[in-house]
Amino acid sequence: MSGQHPTIAIFGPGLMGGSLLMSLRRKSPQSQFRVWGRRAESLEELQRRGLADACSTDAAETARGADFAVLCVPVDRLAEIARAAAPGVGPHCTVTDVGSVKSAVVDELENVFSAHGNFVGSHPMCGSEASGLAAARADLYDNALCVVTPTDRSNPESVRRTEDFWRTVGCRVQCMTPGAHDRAAALVSHVPHVAAAALVNLLADESRETAALCAGGFRDTTRVASGSPELWAAILCQNREETGRTLEKLSGVLAAFRAAVQANDIPQVAALLAQARETRHTIMPEK
Amino acid sequence: MSGQHPTIAIFGPGLMGGSLLMSLRRKSPQSQFRVWGRRAESLEELQRRGLADACSTDAAETARGADFAVLCVPVDRLAEIARAAAPGVGPHCTVTDVGSVKSAVVDELENVFSAHGNFVGSHPMCGSEASGLAAARADLYDNALCVVTPTDRSNPESVRRTEDFWRTVGCRVQCMTPGAHDRAAALVSHVPHVAAAALVNLLADESRETAALCAGGFRDTTRVASGSPELWAAILCQNREETGRTLEKLSGVLAAFRAAVQANDIPQVAALLAQARETRHTIMPEK
Repeated sequence: MSGQHPTIAIFGPGLMGGSLLMSLRRKSPQSQFRVWGRRAESLEELQRRGLADACSTDAAETARGADFAVLCVPVDRLAEIARAAAPGVGPHCTVTDVGSVKSAVVDELENVFSAHGNFVGSHPMCGSEASGLAAARADLYDNALCVVTPTDRSNPESVRRTEDFWRTVGCRVQCMTPGAHDRAAALVSHVPHVAAAALVNLLADESRETAALCAGGFRDTTRVASGSPELWAAILCQNREETGRTLEKLSGVLAAFRAAVQANDIPQVAALLAQARETRHTIMPEK
Repeated sequence: MSGQHPTIAIFGPGLMGGSLLMSLRRKSPQSQFRVWGRRAESLEELQRRGLADACSTDAAETARGADFAVLCVPVDRLAEIARAAAPGVGPHCTVTDVGSVKSAVVDELENVFSAHGNFVGSHPMCGSEASGLAAARADLYDNALCVVTPTDRSNPESVRRTEDFWRTVGCRVQCMTPGAHDRAAALVSHVPHVAAAALVNLLADESRETAALCAGGFRDTTRVASGSPELWAAILCQNREETGRTLEKLSGVLAAFRAAVQANDIPQVAALLAQARETRHTIMPEK
């Protein structure tokens, strides 16, 4: 931050933005918080809860005087809010976002903020199937991974400030290119989301007798399918190239499983499952 | 059970059998427990822990004098153990199993025990990715759903005793035909298992940088992929017709998602996701 007690502007007080405010009030207590929201009621609630020093439904007004700004709106609204805020963003203000897709977003927002080269993309990986200010929590960011995606156009000082910002709220930071992020996000988040929803949709026309068999495994496997359809449709479509490519790969792996199962090739099915167990153990050794 | 204090034979003291013994010692304290195991060390541990009154590596010997017998071995070993136990199974002993697949198992075990018509298939739906006696818990069956799968060949008294048995250890009981069970199990358990493993296998050759992005959603979606490869290969192959058919349906649903994503058709993607969220909410309203 510039100085000890920066002024921070948060755009969109939902799960991500609301949780940021709750965390920052504790971890950066002398900062000032300016909040933009679309709905006056949410802003009133923030002021009632002491989570904002200034609130407005005018994005440029909110940006004015801020040292650091975080756009916490759904990915399909980022460009619009960024354009609305830009006239108020000063030359020393670093701007970041929390969008789950980076290539398209970073391209577009680097253009919006091209005057100062002060936009740096971020994706803190701690969303959940919940959404809205009611679901916000002060500890949402604690120990979460935040991917920061600088490019050749990024101002190095803005990159450093963005990394510092996420560490302040408790995140671990990993830098990647926007493209590498989107490819990885398709693999670990976007396609698993589609798979969970597809598994649930297979049950849409089934009897209560069949549905009654859903046990803990099904509950866990499909938990993410309870996320917001609008939010996720925007994410999947913004990352449509990588999502499409990864869904194609998934179809190939599923076809290999199906061939082995239908051939009653128990050793081959066991080999595919053993690869999964070992890979999962390598990726997340604690479980 | 026949009489107040039945003698119960458990074949296979792993997660399912071990948990049954722990539960029954509390819930049917005056029963006698006879246990068959392949390995002498497991049987010694059971006796040390006071979970068995008699132990043997001879299946027929274990069955002798039992009023109720539960086969708790992996599905691909059920027929072999049933044949070994059969000479010791008396005319008034009801026999059930805990296998995750029913059509093939019930066909085969009804033949093995055809003399008395006293075999009734069961599938208590409370397995987990853990296995073995070390993972056994007294509360594993509490409030779990147990599917009981009688057929035209089942002795009605054996069906009633089987239902009573599962209620004694805390299960809710639902009767279905073996075929209806296998179709439902493919939808809610076997195909979700394959999907989870396939999602993990997409990461097998990925960099640590990519794998580091795996967050809570990925952990939950793929939890079941840490289950035993051998156990699950046997389950999937025993239920290969329904698993194959359901995997084919899943491919169709994934293809519809992919088409909508690649066409950037946000409303259609949102509609597919909304169907999933609503279906999931209907199936498991508490979350």
